Amino acid sequence: MLAYQLIERKRNGGRIEPAEWEELVAAYLRDDVLEWQMAALLMAVYFRGLDREETDALTDTMMRSGSRLDLSHLSAPRLDKHSTGGVGDKVSLILAPLVASLGAAVPMMSGRALGHTGGTLDKLESIRGFRTHLSLAETRVQIERIGCALIGQSEEIAPADRRLYALRDCTATVESIPLIAASIMSKKLCEGLTGLVLDIKRGSGAFMPQLDRGLELAQLMVALGQDHGVPVVALVTAMDRPLGRACGNALELEEAINALHGEGPPDLMRVTYALGAEMLVLGGLAASRDAARRAMEVAISSGRAADKFREVIAAQGGDPAIVDDPSMLPQAVCCELYFAPNAGFVASVDPRRVGFGVIELGGGRKKPKDLIDHSVGFVIAARPGDLVREGEPLATIMARDEAGIAAGRRALEEAIVVADEADFPLPLISHRVTVDGAMPYETTDTPVELAAHS
Amino acid sequence: MLAYQLIERKRNGGRIEPAEWEELVAAYLRDDVLEWQMAALLMAVYFRGLDREETDALTDTMMRSGSRLDLSHLSAPRLDKHSTGGVGDKVSLILAPLVASLGAAVPMMSGRALGHTGGTLDKLESIRGFRTHLSLAETRVQIERIGCALIGQSEEIAPADRRLYALRDCTATVESIPLIAASIMSKKLCEGLTGLVLDIKRGSGAFMPQLDRGLELAQLMVALGQDHGVPVVALVTAMDRPLGRACGNALELEEAINALHGEGPPDLMRVTYALGAEMLVLGGLAASRDAARRAMEVAISSGRAADKFREVIAAQGGDPAIVDDPSMLPQAVCCELYFAPNAGFVASVDPRRVGFGVIELGGGRKKPKDLIDHSVGFVIAARPGDLVREGEPLATIMARDEAGIAAGRRALEEAIVVADEADFPLPLISHRVTVDGAMPYETTDTPVELAAHS
Repeated sequence: MLAYQLIERKRNGGRIEPAEWEELVAAYLRDDVLEWQMAALLMAVYFRGLDREETDALTDTMMRSGSRLDLSHLSAPRLDKHSTGGVGDKVSLILAPLVASLGAAVPMMSGRALGHTGGTLDKLESIRGFRTHLSLAETRVQIERIGCALIGQSEEIAPADRRLYALRDCTATVESIPLIAASIMSKKLCEGLTGLVLDIKRGSGAFMPQLDRGLELAQLMVALGQDHGVPVVALVTAMDRPLGRACGNALELEEAINALHGEGPPDLMRVTYALGAEMLVLGGLAASRDAARRAMEVAISSGRAADKFREVIAAQGGDPAIVDDPSMLPQAVCCELYFAPNAGFVASVDPRRVGFGVIELGGGRKKPKDLIDHSVGFVIAARPGDLVREGEPLATIMARDEAGIAAGRRALEEAIVVADEADFPLPLISHRVTVDGAMPYETTDTPVELAAHS
Repeated sequence: MLAYQLIERKRNGGRIEPAEWEELVAAYLRDDVLEWQMAALLMAVYFRGLDREETDALTDTMMRSGSRLDLSHLSAPRLDKHSTGGVGDKVSLILAPLVASLGAAVPMMSGRALGHTGGTLDKLESIRGFRTHLSLAETRVQIERIGCALIGQSEEIAPADRRLYALRDCTATVESIPLIAASIMSKKLCEGLTGLVLDIKRGSGAFMPQLDRGLELAQLMVALGQDHGVPVVALVTAMDRPLGRACGNALELEEAINALHGEGPPDLMRVTYALGAEMLVLGGLAASRDAARRAMEVAISSGRAADKFREVIAAQGGDPAIVDDPSMLPQAVCCELYFAPNAGFVASVDPRRVGFGVIELGGGRKKPKDLIDHSVGFVIAARPGDLVREGEPLATIMARDEAGIAAGRRALEEAIVVADEADFPLPLISHRVTVDGAMPYETTDTPVELAAHS
């Protein structure tokens, strides 16, 4: 009866009060509210939205549906980063040890591959023996000891969100800004953070391609953080092309290791430093973003960031030697260069097509239970705007067999467009969102790009 | 995968093709499409609607999900009437035997009480032993033999509609015009009709109070009938007050019996004759509505209509003597008059409040499995617009006990407003909808009312 009334009210554009959200979610977890009633409500929310108080209440009740990671006894700031998901985005793998090496506690909770995008957990599992599922107690001990854990969402964290997300995933109700915001924030608020940085992707490869929707999501999550006493800063970054060069699990891990050794591709490093600078400033570990940037460069050049990654790998069951010898990672059997079919400008490198290409190679799941081949994928040197000659190598395909190479070639033929003209790609980092609102991103480290695209 | 794509497409405002509706409903009946996916789709349909081809396809696929009543071997026209539901609406009980007595085959499939409205099946079950659930085979034999059956929706008829309706009923997705039209028409088209008449209620006691929405529903159902080769005519009738005087199961059956003896209240008879005239003209049993009206008056005055009702009752297990002695019906223990609290005009007799009052007396269900007390209810003599004196009897309350009398009195105190002024009530029959569109209802038999309200 409660469920029916709330569905009807939301359907008609009304509000659901905080106490009603709590009662509804509790009844749902007891199976007193039926799965199909919740599905109908979620679709009504898709159309009618939630106001801020409703979103706060839903976030709250999902957050309180399970356990929380209590790190309040630590003197170190507790910092995390969340990305809305992209192709080639291996920033978490670099950022967690990097920021932890500078004194932060980083309980980085990540996800699996979703749609065309890769997942940090899948990438980490390229390391033989690496355990991505720690209990909350294990996570707490590891963070006390080494200041960093790279883990999946524990069963203990926000079980209501887990169930609602699974339901949304099969009922086409994922793409709702308040539901996305509540889902992400309910989990992140369980981590006991003192600061959170968001990477909001925009462009064709993002789940929410339009800038205005991305900004809306960012502002809502910043507001939810504020309502729950956790400072949040969001950066809007480009996902109209893959980030960095490597796309595929072990390949991305290798690129992340290279980055920790100071050899990451420029775009990947710019995004990593920008997000890291926000984390360090939020955590009081740097006085300014410029100072944070310099501290991170030193952490990398001194080897401290790589050391921290070794500690994390060892703590979670992997062989830390992999940080010095990435060739220990799974290696693809077949490898072939992909050449420019004609001369011209690289007009686009479609991240969605690249991402689905990785799945076709076996590097992602077509069905939930599929096993992943961590070795396969692409390393794409070509960037939108590059001037290329006919026959110039643009990418490398790593596959299990010749059929994989052929599939990879088809994917790249569709993904990489070389034309007589090319539009400017999106600015790599375009906006910064704080409680004061959304502002164009200002930085001292990418003057050329800003000049070209602002 | 199919379900997800269709939900997403409908959510985004797209169309679902006829073959896809068929596949979707078939998969749903096989449990390959999950209940919650269907719930999400229905909510998306609530917001996005269905175009005529989609509504046709959904109607079709629900209709073909079960068996059909094949009456095509009969030379008599097969006619039925459907009402969108109201309070005091006992028209079916009169109309079925009346029209059957004039040569039509009437496979009248009715429902249970729903919300504040009564149900024809519940009213019929006031007759001890009356079987409302006949198999299709039994129904066919009975119609061959006596031309009329008053039955519930057999399990064999449109099982997809039955399941979808139950789902809509608990997910607040009932109030969608295309879903309502498809649901009603999928069942009615299973009856093998040659003509169908619809009574579309409007006003505060209707499920869809607004005239424009009622007309939209009527036009859609007329169109669906046309698409399936069944002529449909709809009349829009008033449900801003109860129809007739009796509200409650046995009381309404008694009023229907009185009507078959020529002693029905004027408003009830006008609606019954208007709907019956449409049926008889559609069936080719009368040359004009006026001729049909005269034929019906003769059927009643000659006793043929009452005879037909006796036949139906006997065929379905009841005692036909009840038609001559309605005191054989269940009688309430307590009975009390309700008096005008002050002098003035009757400003309103709220059908919703009266309907819920019957439920409070025990004459309807609060929960699906509740047993009904058929004896209780109201007989309301007051009509909106009546000038009444203080202390004048306005109604009679029939209840199980003194507590029931008190509850009934409260219901009438709220339902019947006597004030210094009264607005005109809605015209009893306001519109007639055919394939040519919606037109103001024209008749020669209610000149006074038309003059007063047009």
